[in-house]
Amino acid sequence: MPDMSLLPVTERTRHRRLREQGSTDRRDLEDILRAGVICHLGVMVDGYPMVVPTVYGLTGDTLYLHGSVASRSLVSAPQATICVTVTHVDGLVLARSVFEHAVNYRSAMIYGTPRLVTEREEKLAGLRSLTEHIVPGQWDYARRPNKKELAQTSLLALCLDEASVKIRRGPPDDGDSPDAALPVWAGVLPLAAAWQAPVPDPVLPAGIPLPPHIASLANRPAGMRVGS
Amino acid sequence: MPDMSLLPVTERTRHRRLREQGSTDRRDLEDILRAGVICHLGVMVDGYPMVVPTVYGLTGDTLYLHGSVASRSLVSAPQATICVTVTHVDGLVLARSVFEHAVNYRSAMIYGTPRLVTEREEKLAGLRSLTEHIVPGQWDYARRPNKKELAQTSLLALCLDEASVKIRRGPPDDGDSPDAALPVWAGVLPLAAAWQAPVPDPVLPAGIPLPPHIASLANRPAGMRVGS
Repeated sequence: MPDMSLLPVTERTRHRRLREQGSTDRRDLEDILRAGVICHLGVMVDGYPMVVPTVYGLTGDTLYLHGSVASRSLVSAPQATICVTVTHVDGLVLARSVFEHAVNYRSAMIYGTPRLVTEREEKLAGLRSLTEHIVPGQWDYARRPNKKELAQTSLLALCLDEASVKIRRGPPDDGDSPDAALPVWAGVLPLAAAWQAPVPDPVLPAGIPLPPHIASLANRPAGMRVGS
Repeated sequence: MPDMSLLPVTERTRHRRLREQGSTDRRDLEDILRAGVICHLGVMVDGYPMVVPTVYGLTGDTLYLHGSVASRSLVSAPQATICVTVTHVDGLVLARSVFEHAVNYRSAMIYGTPRLVTEREEKLAGLRSLTEHIVPGQWDYARRPNKKELAQTSLLALCLDEASVKIRRGPPDDGDSPDAALPVWAGVLPLAAAWQAPVPDPVLPAGIPLPPHIASLANRPAGMRVGS
């Protein structure tokens, strides 16, 4: 029986290079996806690759993508392999030599053939996951999609079975090389993202309070971890 | 004579949807690329799209990408169209209705067929642009690539002629809709990224000072602007 805590290795997800950066731990995949705000969706359109930034949702082992039914990237996606990549940049690795410069990062690339969701209950659950992914509590707070809005929205489901996870952490790699004798500062410049203070809509009527589930996000780290 | 401050519109870059978000101002493209830390490179490999996070450099109207000569994404790229996307997430747009939720962002998608750089002087200039893009001053500070390292590095040049720029700013779109009467808070939750305090390599010898060009980055905003 396969170890379900490990990601299966396929021809596409086998780590060919820089193998020390590859992870097959399913928890790493989940952590990276949970911490992300947007993904980059790669899809073939008219014979060329198109890389589109978009939000996503997660439920169990499924990733959801949505868009207008008129979107070229979504219309092209079903019945073809897509690649969804989520990346967190945690810092710059400043080595003694230019050649050893690197980025501390966490990334997940998911391959698969997405499924167009047509069943109403799954569509609502998928859209809920998209909203709740970034602002938990917002699905129950804001007005939910009506029938017309649901019809205008396409939802794609992508199984998380085939994923390649790469992580780089820590200091530069040339600390034990001849370059370590150079009088050059080496280390990491960490990068961190954080939610700022909410900005009310200028036309928001007075007396509508900021709900706690939004207020609690302010000044909290978002996605990128302070890496080193 | 064409207006060089405008981006040419092609079948791939014509804004089909949400046209109010499309920009054909070349300065917007330059601002987005200059502010980015990484891009997402989309390339076809064995018949499927692959979306790879990677750093990049800029000189004039050329974007440079580099990697190991063994990299699958780089080896596949020449002679085929690639798509390079740089995205900044500036904030979450929290509307009265789930349907109107959006992201404030700035993104540039560049299409083209990259050129493998083989000439030594351009290769050095391209690698310099990669290093200088994120940490100005580092090319002159760290040890530059030697002959062997240069041979191990592939460099691709991509012309910036065909680019699609999209920008969303400002409050939710449902402030003048019937939903505006709902007792629901609406506004923007801005997101900002910033460089943190540099972390020296644990094996860095005492007495090597942090150079000013790195120190000056600490606590400064990176890429993402505090949008609203």
